[in-house]
Amino acid sequence: MLNSGFETLREDGDAVVILDQTRLPAEVVYARLTHVEQAAHAIRILQARGAPLIGATAAYGVALGLATAADDDTLSAVCARLAATRPTAVNLQWALARMQACLLPLPASERRAMAWREARAIAAEDVAANAAIGQYGLPLIEHAAARSGTAQVMTHCNAGWLATVAHGTALASVYAAHAAGIRQHVWVSETRPRNQGQLTAWELGQAGVARSFVADNAAGLLLMRGEIDIVIVGADRIAANGDVANKVGTYLKALAARAHDVPFYVAAPVSTIDFDCPDGTAIPIEEREAEELGIHALGLADCPVRNLAFDVTPAALIAGIITEHGIFPPQQLAGLRR
Amino acid sequence: MLNSGFETLREDGDAVVILDQTRLPAEVVYARLTHVEQAAHAIRILQARGAPLIGATAAYGVALGLATAADDDTLSAVCARLAATRPTAVNLQWALARMQACLLPLPASERRAMAWREARAIAAEDVAANAAIGQYGLPLIEHAAARSGTAQVMTHCNAGWLATVAHGTALASVYAAHAAGIRQHVWVSETRPRNQGQLTAWELGQAGVARSFVADNAAGLLLMRGEIDIVIVGADRIAANGDVANKVGTYLKALAARAHDVPFYVAAPVSTIDFDCPDGTAIPIEEREAEELGIHALGLADCPVRNLAFDVTPAALIAGIITEHGIFPPQQLAGLRR
Repeated sequence: MLNSGFETLREDGDAVVILDQTRLPAEVVYARLTHVEQAAHAIRILQARGAPLIGATAAYGVALGLATAADDDTLSAVCARLAATRPTAVNLQWALARMQACLLPLPASERRAMAWREARAIAAEDVAANAAIGQYGLPLIEHAAARSGTAQVMTHCNAGWLATVAHGTALASVYAAHAAGIRQHVWVSETRPRNQGQLTAWELGQAGVARSFVADNAAGLLLMRGEIDIVIVGADRIAANGDVANKVGTYLKALAARAHDVPFYVAAPVSTIDFDCPDGTAIPIEEREAEELGIHALGLADCPVRNLAFDVTPAALIAGIITEHGIFPPQQLAGLRR
Repeated sequence: MLNSGFETLREDGDAVVILDQTRLPAEVVYARLTHVEQAAHAIRILQARGAPLIGATAAYGVALGLATAADDDTLSAVCARLAATRPTAVNLQWALARMQACLLPLPASERRAMAWREARAIAAEDVAANAAIGQYGLPLIEHAAARSGTAQVMTHCNAGWLATVAHGTALASVYAAHAAGIRQHVWVSETRPRNQGQLTAWELGQAGVARSFVADNAAGLLLMRGEIDIVIVGADRIAANGDVANKVGTYLKALAARAHDVPFYVAAPVSTIDFDCPDGTAIPIEEREAEELGIHALGLADCPVRNLAFDVTPAALIAGIITEHGIFPPQQLAGLRR
């Protein structure tokens, strides 16, 4: 059943309903968005998160922000508001650029209706892209299972269906393997500071996929001990040279995977590739509120915090990028530019 | 002022008083130990933690466990109880072996009094060893400051005075540099799952040492960006070949330090070297309670947890071991065997 029967994002009349990911795994609660400001807020506080889902939510946010007739200034202001929510995931900019390119040539009176149609198209394309990613990644897990009996898959953060409209990116292959009856077990990292690993443990549990939960710090020892066959993560932005920005901590896993000759894959739709970004040093890395580390209430109110939300994994550490068009070496992404 | 005026462990008549580290940083609370079972519990639940402090607390635990006249069976049972608390830090076994070697030749009637004296000696030697470690490590920070203006020091877990009777191990050099007026800034990692980085942030704050708090996951990006000059960590057990077991996550920092040519040092007294342990694969790695990850109360009650408390950093990644006898290449520890 798609997304184990849940929906991360759906239309409901003139509103958009999202699964509030800040309440998971403890509670399944939905949030109803009727204004662009609510969509921006949802992205900012991670009610809707994950690069592909951020893109789709932003697209719907544009639709929510347009009155029946929307002039150029309104369209521009709505997109600017949404663009300002989070800097690293390029899918946000990509979706907003696509919405503007679609809407600007139209008369003001037609923009609102088209915005809903284009957002719907973006969401549908995300579902299709991620389904294809899952099929392309499936043989990797199949081969690992053939070698090890049970494929031991390590991931980081949440790159499952919660991070997308459906299927997920990194976990799309896991779900495809699950549907194919392949024996596998997923190592889920806590993903401090926002604990998105809890989301991953929850959604894998909903689907009945075997998994174990570990602290981020445990990745090195697990890889050293040979307990991992393959690492698959998502991405927030992939530079033209194949460097990958993803949730902070990804780079440490990539280094440890390399040290123990375990293949490290990145799964992402082409909308996550920023062909205008030459390499990882040009990717803006979001720094978030100190409060996410939670120490200021504990007698450490004077202690400075640096809350870096992403890091960059160099292309040289990546075995392949799993896209909806196939698996590509990170150095050979140029052909995917449309 | 030694330990900023606090004491991790002190005698109080027939009792031992320890700073309860499970209450920090929110509260400064002391626990009074009068029975060996209390000492064992304190070590087990991390009220007293850090390899050197575990050793000293166990030594005092032996004293608490002996009646006025203690036969061989009692001595053996007391040591066995304490030895069973935690498997990885070799200082625990080292201190218990030393206590037994000291007490077994004595008549039963003299053992209790000698146990207090020997525990006192172990504690005093820890203070002296760590002071020496601080002086040997000081030039490393001094040189980093000379190069960078401000020495940017990364550490992991808590290897400060809280982990010892006084001075600390990794942080002994930081405190020595602070006393010498050297400009430095310490990057403190949260250290999931038990958050010992909060202890480090607290004790550095008490001493007025500049520091910033980050998620463990941030280490890779900080090193990649060139924000770190030197990494110094403690150790729970050093194998004869120089492999180092330390708090889980240490290995990931060592890999990232190597990737960016940042020197990675381990600071520990010789009591942390296990000359009978050939290499890191022979070091027992403690696995602790699932509850420390905190997910079972969050709707993930069915999710298995692997709570690995330590990992192993290969000698090849270590620039040097800072001991009370000087800084040694990890491959050249044999000469330190007494």
